[in-house]
Amino acid sequence: MLERVRIVLIGTSHPGNIGGVARAMHNMGLADLALVAPRCDIITQDSISRASGADHLLHSAQVFASIEDAVADCTLAVGASARSRTLPWPMLSPRELADRLPAECQPADSRVALVFGREDSGLTNAELQRCHAHVHIPTNADFSSLNLAAAVQVLAYECRMAWLSQASHEPSASGPAATVQPVTVSQADDDLASHAALENYFEHLERVLITIRFHDPEKPRQLMARLRRLYLRARPEQMEMNILRGILSATEKATQHKQPRE
Amino acid sequence: MLERVRIVLIGTSHPGNIGGVARAMHNMGLADLALVAPRCDIITQDSISRASGADHLLHSAQVFASIEDAVADCTLAVGASARSRTLPWPMLSPRELADRLPAECQPADSRVALVFGREDSGLTNAELQRCHAHVHIPTNADFSSLNLAAAVQVLAYECRMAWLSQASHEPSASGPAATVQPVTVSQADDDLASHAALENYFEHLERVLITIRFHDPEKPRQLMARLRRLYLRARPEQMEMNILRGILSATEKATQHKQPRE
Repeated sequence: MLERVRIVLIGTSHPGNIGGVARAMHNMGLADLALVAPRCDIITQDSISRASGADHLLHSAQVFASIEDAVADCTLAVGASARSRTLPWPMLSPRELADRLPAECQPADSRVALVFGREDSGLTNAELQRCHAHVHIPTNADFSSLNLAAAVQVLAYECRMAWLSQASHEPSASGPAATVQPVTVSQADDDLASHAALENYFEHLERVLITIRFHDPEKPRQLMARLRRLYLRARPEQMEMNILRGILSATEKATQHKQPRE
Repeated sequence: MLERVRIVLIGTSHPGNIGGVARAMHNMGLADLALVAPRCDIITQDSISRASGADHLLHSAQVFASIEDAVADCTLAVGASARSRTLPWPMLSPRELADRLPAECQPADSRVALVFGREDSGLTNAELQRCHAHVHIPTNADFSSLNLAAAVQVLAYECRMAWLSQASHEPSASGPAATVQPVTVSQADDDLASHAALENYFEHLERVLITIRFHDPEKPRQLMARLRRLYLRARPEQMEMNILRGILSATEKATQHKQPRE
């Protein structure tokens, strides 16, 4: 899917931004970069340094004279745009675009172009009207102009998320699904303690709390209930349970010679 | 909600990246920037030019000596991290983090810190273990190192999307987050312990574990890291923190007459 997404930059004027775009694309697994009438050199010290290892995308980038040439083979062209336009156009949020992407990229010959305008003036109305739809990245109304590489980063990230969620729907790759519960993920290295192990711990804990005179069964208040809630919430692993039991045993050993108390 | 999200940059070495982060933050409506032991000047021609109009965030940025100081008042600290770590930690995707945010930011005194590491080496294990959870931005396995400003851009974008969807879901704003984290729900009856209170607890705990001879700082293995992970995962309330501190004090009292040991 990601290999069918093309990033199109129109009239870019700073090599560093082209390098930053290349890095953002490669980070998210995109590789098809098209430059329309760039207003600067593409391969410079600045662009290579900002690409930071993704400069092969600078070398493989195709250069076109017009947006028509750059998107000629594309089945969907979406222009990045600020919201209000004289002529209303189908407008997508980055997430709505991502939701459409898997279907749009299904056909073998499909190509989706994400078109970005000039650093200073964006896309012209003529260029926006070459696009099937426009995508607007929500921004602070008082400060809406995103850096070019940042805008590409956000859309490329949404493309990757769409690709990953698509992959996760296939039976094998249940990776992302596992992250639904962060706690579950944190258990990956060990099994959860059994309920019996937890009950044994709570009994042991109460004995020790009485020994160190922190807990008085005659006046329990809600001490054990609160401690239960805390530890049950943490879903301890077996290994963690062993550590907590070990701490209780060490506490008993360190205090034993003081029994019976004065 | 967005005003309760703090971006924490640790050991940043390029002023341009700090400027890029300021621009990304202001674009998405974030304003709280904290710098921990920066390895470069903050206000430079490069940082101001990359901030491109958001340089007021550079001037208002707070500088701290350590991550503990920068997140001391935070109720949730999330560290940006590559996936595999020696000791697995609760791991969120940027979207799962965004889903949690509305509920996390509900209390008036809540503060959420998103912590980013050095350009060259990221966050240390010690720094990652100061965080309740880690967030991993999905990237191309062959090219996973995101530019610092790009990483902040992605998470800031997800924060803004969460804020926008919350606004559109009013009044049932807490809907999405409630489904994500039962932990959050369990905190309803009391305030969360601050990060500083947790750090004080871990210091006290380590002293006591040494006293009862359960812990040998010469051979730490991963004991304190495992205990940190367990208690940070449980998100203790202030009242629970008081109970745990009380247990440590009672343990010290019950063992004191046996010091020094034979």
